[in-house]
Amino acid sequence: MRVGVLASGAGTNLQAILDRVHGHAAEVVAVGADRADAQALERAAVAGVPTAVFALDDHGGDRDARDAAMGDWLAARGPRLVVLAGYMQLLTPGFLARFPERVINVHPALLPAFPGVRAIEQAVDYGVKVFGVTVHFVDEGVDSGRIILQRALELPAATDPAEVHAALRPLEHELLCKAIELIARGAVRPDPGHPRRILVAE
Amino acid sequence: MRVGVLASGAGTNLQAILDRVHGHAAEVVAVGADRADAQALERAAVAGVPTAVFALDDHGGDRDARDAAMGDWLAARGPRLVVLAGYMQLLTPGFLARFPERVINVHPALLPAFPGVRAIEQAVDYGVKVFGVTVHFVDEGVDSGRIILQRALELPAATDPAEVHAALRPLEHELLCKAIELIARGAVRPDPGHPRRILVAE
Repeated sequence: MRVGVLASGAGTNLQAILDRVHGHAAEVVAVGADRADAQALERAAVAGVPTAVFALDDHGGDRDARDAAMGDWLAARGPRLVVLAGYMQLLTPGFLARFPERVINVHPALLPAFPGVRAIEQAVDYGVKVFGVTVHFVDEGVDSGRIILQRALELPAATDPAEVHAALRPLEHELLCKAIELIARGAVRPDPGHPRRILVAE
Repeated sequence: MRVGVLASGAGTNLQAILDRVHGHAAEVVAVGADRADAQALERAAVAGVPTAVFALDDHGGDRDARDAAMGDWLAARGPRLVVLAGYMQLLTPGFLARFPERVINVHPALLPAFPGVRAIEQAVDYGVKVFGVTVHFVDEGVDSGRIILQRALELPAATDPAEVHAALRPLEHELLCKAIELIARGAVRPDPGHPRRILVAE
């Protein structure tokens, strides 16, 4: 299965995909970023994967134009799946329409709790005792798409978002790679009897 | 520690408290209900615990009057803690002011996700893969008070709310009893440095 990846930052989720999935269950055929200094681009280059930058400023601040260019570049590489690995931009409806039910994201909270940015800080501020990670399909909302996989982590004494993130990161890597592998072997499908449920045959 | 309990229904959480905590870490000194047919009342009577019914209709539909009478009855029995064990009424601010930070509730979801009624149905409808239970202090909002304990349960193939509830019920009993025991031995206190966090010394 050919996979495109979008990233914004350090790219540790991308690295997990390159290390564990690339060349096995899937082939990463393209890595795009919204900023030229995203470390993810270096990781992709080291792995010999084509990269490109789609900064909003290069498209006159026009999100539709940026996402159209990014979609063209990705589509030319024929991915069956687009993986958001720490990609911090909201995708336009036009982009999502080109990859229907084929864009997934990993989020460091048990959605629908704590969507959006700074999810772990939100959770720590709320005073929860259980944290977690969600992999979901991306729709036009903010972290509101259908859930593929979730994993919980009980951290009843957590007070420091950085410590929580360090504890969640291995779960993010594991769950995102697992989701790609499951999708690659056709084990993930919508429940025909339920609009929001994703059936996973593990 | 003297404990009052409020219930509305079958009273399985009350039964767990009577079986595991009553006469050990705490003494249940009063069981109130908002309906005369609450099975919880029978369970209390069998255990020799005083009971009373505070139905809204008996107070002309006036929630303040009902909660004032209920508060008087409870206060006369001197509970240090009031436990909501499947109590389906929202408590008035006047009632809560009489028992400040001394009312706790158990909720069958990982709050702040899925507050309010039919929490498990809400979670199943959303398509989550992780369910859970929360014990929290009660404030004037709906399931919005500070969290004492949470426990997660991964049920990735869950489709039936009744099955989820059957799986969560033992966790509800365990967590609610544990919270009472922790409070009885002074192991639960607010974090002076954080408005929402409850510190638990296990």
